[in-house]
This record gives sequence, structure tokens and C-alpha cells, in this order.
Amino acid sequence: MPMAQKTYDIIIIGAGPAGLAAGIYAGRIGLNTLILERGLPGGRAVEATMVENFPGFPEGITGMELIQRMIDHTERFGVELRLSEEVVDIDLSKETKVVTTKNEAYQTRALILSTGTQRKKLLVPGEAEFLGRGVSYCPICDGPFFKGLVVMVIGSNDEAAHDALYLTQIAKRVCMIGSSEEAEMSEALKEKLAEEKNFEFLLNTKVEAIEGDTSVKAVKVVNMKTNKQEKLPTDAVFISLGGVPMTQIAQKAKIELDQRGCINVDRGQRTNIEGVFAAGDCTCGGMQMVTAAGEGATAAIRASIYVRRKTR
Amino acid sequence: MPMAQKTYDIIIIGAGPAGLAAGIYAGRIGLNTLILERGLPGGRAVEATMVENFPGFPEGITGMELIQRMIDHTERFGVELRLSEEVVDIDLSKETKVVTTKNEAYQTRALILSTGTQRKKLLVPGEAEFLGRGVSYCPICDGPFFKGLVVMVIGSNDEAAHDALYLTQIAKRVCMIGSSEEAEMSEALKEKLAEEKNFEFLLNTKVEAIEGDTSVKAVKVVNMKTNKQEKLPTDAVFISLGGVPMTQIAQKAKIELDQRGCINVDRGQRTNIEGVFAAGDCTCGGMQMVTAAGEGATAAIRASIYVRRKTR
Repeated sequence: MPMAQKTYDIIIIGAGPAGLAAGIYAGRIGLNTLILERGLPGGRAVEATMVENFPGFPEGITGMELIQRMIDHTERFGVELRLSEEVVDIDLSKETKVVTTKNEAYQTRALILSTGTQRKKLLVPGEAEFLGRGVSYCPICDGPFFKGLVVMVIGSNDEAAHDALYLTQIAKRVCMIGSSEEAEMSEALKEKLAEEKNFEFLLNTKVEAIEGDTSVKAVKVVNMKTNKQEKLPTDAVFISLGGVPMTQIAQKAKIELDQRGCINVDRGQRTNIEGVFAAGDCTCGGMQMVTAAGEGATAAIRASIYVRRKTR
Repeated sequence: MPMAQKTYDIIIIGAGPAGLAAGIYAGRIGLNTLILERGLPGGRAVEATMVENFPGFPEGITGMELIQRMIDHTERFGVELRLSEEVVDIDLSKETKVVTTKNEAYQTRALILSTGTQRKKLLVPGEAEFLGRGVSYCPICDGPFFKGLVVMVIGSNDEAAHDALYLTQIAKRVCMIGSSEEAEMSEALKEKLAEEKNFEFLLNTKVEAIEGDTSVKAVKVVNMKTNKQEKLPTDAVFISLGGVPMTQIAQKAKIELDQRGCINVDRGQRTNIEGVFAAGDCTCGGMQMVTAAGEGATAAIRASIYVRRKTR
């Protein structure tokens, strides 16, 4: 391990909306701030072709552009952002915490985790190609683009059921596709869905490909009992296979998780370890950019109070 | 009381950042949404001459302009906004809730309270005149504008002490002014402040006026024991007399408050009453625009799930 030298006031792990907002706040307060991002910045937000619900952008803005504006915003306040810098270990045993990446070890007084969620992918042809052009992982974000149209929901657990229920309010027709023999959702949700006139449910059905031209036009499915292949026309495919909070490093460092594997925080975004805060999707928060950003701001304010107390 | 007719899906009380963000989300989801505001929109946000920390606006934006953009944003999704419409009573005894203003009674399925906080004013000449030009009620928002300068903090309780501690990290000199004989803060905070080399504390001192030209230049004070008047030069006056959450109507309707008088909510912004949500400063949240907006978004998503469940 290389020698750690400079001590940061705050290190933020993850450069999605939560991490970047935390950076803006920490930087503006005048704290020595470093953001470490294992890949490219933006998290799931950059998948959004058009963000229609980030307050302040009535005309909509692409996820990429909004993230770029947030990066510019952190830079304005002198925040360091290091990309492709994957954190492999955090040591919280001493008051000065050590964050080790594949390249280096960094010292910090406070730590904010905003590591996000990894969406489970369907892994079929067309999924990546049509992302943002009919393929989506977020009904709340993208559902309204398909008002009065036909949409598919891939998945059959409670989360997928909630997604489908939401979409029945917007879309002309919602077709849910599950590969298992039985739906994995609760009975109550099953009943609710059954009441929706514009809803249908295909079980034992596997999606083999998503097809289209400039946007999604159909899904190719196969019935796993009869082996019958079919092409179902649709305007959108919502993939609701759930997400995995990126909390492996937190868990290794004995930061308390809840039963879903999300980092446990209070309303001040504090974890169970003093000086360690968490914000955004890794806490199972609102899964919305503005909510993640709000949590990031709160985490940074709380962290700055903590740092001030420790350094005076 | 006039007859209530149309039933809204969601009524939002208060058109600050929390209420407007809730409106954007509720409107986009396609819910029939009404925002009632007792005065002009924006809440405390419009006091901000320059908002430097709302993520996505790296160049800064005036509070007024940001609020106008949020209003445009709600209008885009068909949300009704009624100004100068003060709510005098809410009846939550039935599933369809009734919100009565001075003019009318409205029916709604779900309710979001985003009524904000009323800042205690100093009520001296110059306070209103120099608002946004040296006078501020929010050190986190406006402190960084006075880096390396001299600032005053008016107040002597714990909240004022936290404000002063924060400002000692930024300003050249921080002078705290309290009118009481003894500081009203905790001993721990007193000790912390005493350790700051750029801090001084005037007790028994009353501010009589805030003076300046284009911006604040001085405060006129009087020592209440000696009656000696003095003019103290300063670049900014932070008024930290605390705020009163605007929760009288909530309390009347038996919505649970905490010991500070704020509305008690969980992480889904739910209150103790089904179908009633709260967001922003009235919940003693982060007191930041982006945090309030994030909470408003969460409240609207939760409210929409509630409405969907009740209307199907």
C-alpha cells in the first residue's frame, strides 16, 4: 500500500447526483474535498435521455447535460474529482479514515458514501442499443413519455408489480412478462393488478430480444413450456428486475445495512459510524435525482459540522 | 362554508421549493393537482439574491428566477397554482379530505403540507432594506459570500452558536450579539466558540439599526446596562433568532409534531395520518432548497401511490 499523505476533510465515494451535490456543498463550505468515482460520473442518471422532473429545468434536460452542469458546479468550488478510481477498501478504525483505491491510499476526516445501485440487466440483444429509446429501468422517470401507448414490464416481483401498477395509470396497455412459473409478488399486489382493465400478465415467458428501428417496436419472447416463439408489439420495455445497492465496501467496513442491503441512515444522513455519512440510492432513498441531490447536500452539511468539531 | 365540488387527487399547501417540486412530480404522474399558497410563491427562497448551491446551476441563479423556473415547471404538467389563498382549516376525518381557505373549500384524496418556516425577524430599521445585500437569515446559504470579511451574528442560542461556529471558518472576524445577560447556548458550544481566535461575543447588547449604502456597512447597538450607543462596522448581519415552523393548521388537524413543533415524518415523508404527507422546512428538514425539493418529490411519489390504491 502506498503511503497516505495529505488528509482531506471529506472524501465522497461515487459521482452520481448524490455525490456531486455533496461535493458542491462541501466545496462551497470551503472543505478540502475529493470525489472518487470508479467509472464515469453520473451514475444511473446519465442513462436518462431526457430528465423532465429535475426541478428548475421546465423544458427538460438530458441526464448527461445535467450531470455535466453538476460537475462544473463542483469544480467551481475547487472540488477534486478522480475518475476510474475504484475504491477497494476503507479503514474506519481510526479517527482519520483511510480510503484505498486500486491506485492509491487517501486520508480523510469524514466520508460520504454515495455508491448508488446497480440495476440488474436483462442481457438480451437490443437492451443496450435501445436504452433511452424505449428501454428504461425507471418507470417514474420515463413512464410519462409513453402516455396512451403500449408498454411491457419485465419482472414479476413486488417492485415490478408496483412499476406495472404505476404504468397502468399512464399507458394504454401494460403487459407484464415473467420468466417464472408463478408471479413472485404478494397476493395483494396480484389482486390489485388483476383489477386493472388495461393489464395483462404473461408467465413462463422469456424475453429473447428487444427489436425496433429508431425506437423500440417489439419484444421477441418464447414460452418456456410450449417453446412457442412470438413477437409482441410494444412502444417501451421497462426492465424491473430490481437493483443491487453497491454496499459491499460499506459492509466490509462494518457500516450498518438494512435488510435490503442498503446503508442505514437517519434524517441527517448519518450512518452508525461517527464521521461516516451516506446519501442517494445506496441508502434506498427516493431513487430520484433531486432526492439523491438533496440527501447529498444534507450529508455534506452534517459532515462539515463533524469535521469542524474534530479539527478545532 | 361554500360547497366543495371537484375532488383533487393531491392538494399541496405552500409553494416554496418543497411544494413546487411536489407539484412537478404529481403533475407529471398525471394527478389532478392543486397548490395553495397563502401569499406569493417561493417561501424563504425568494429572499436569496444569489443561490450558489442548487445543483445544476454552476453559475448561480437568483432565488426569484429559480422559483419562477419551478413554477413554469409545474405549469408544464398542468398543475393549478392559487396564490393569496390562505388555508384556515383542514378536515382529515374522512378519506376525502377537505381543505378550507378564506375563499373556498376544496376536496382532495391526498394532502402534502409544505408550509415552511417563519423566520423570527429582528424588526429594526435597515433589516428589510438590506435583505440580500448583507442581511441574511441563512449562514449556510450566504456565508460563503463573506469569505475573509467581518460578519455579525444576532442571537445567542444553540442555533445561533452553530451559525457562528460555521462562520468562523469562513469570515475574518465573527461578532455575536446577544441581548440577554447570559448566552442561551449550551456550555459545550460556549467553550467551542471561546476557542475560536476570530470570534467575539457581546452580551447585554441590543441592535437598534442596520446601516449601509448599497450594502451593509455597520450595526448600531446599545449596551443595555450602560446605555452606551455604538456603531460597529461589519460586512454582513446574520440574524439567527430561530424560526417557527408553520404547523398551526397541522396541529389543529391532529397531525403529529415533534418537540420542536415540526411535522413528524418518516423517510417516505409520511405523517401519522394516512394520505397526509409533509416536506421541506415545516418538517425541520435540511433547510436547503435542494433538500426541500427532494423531499417534495418523495412526498408526491408516495402520495401518488396512496391515491392510486384508494381510487382503484
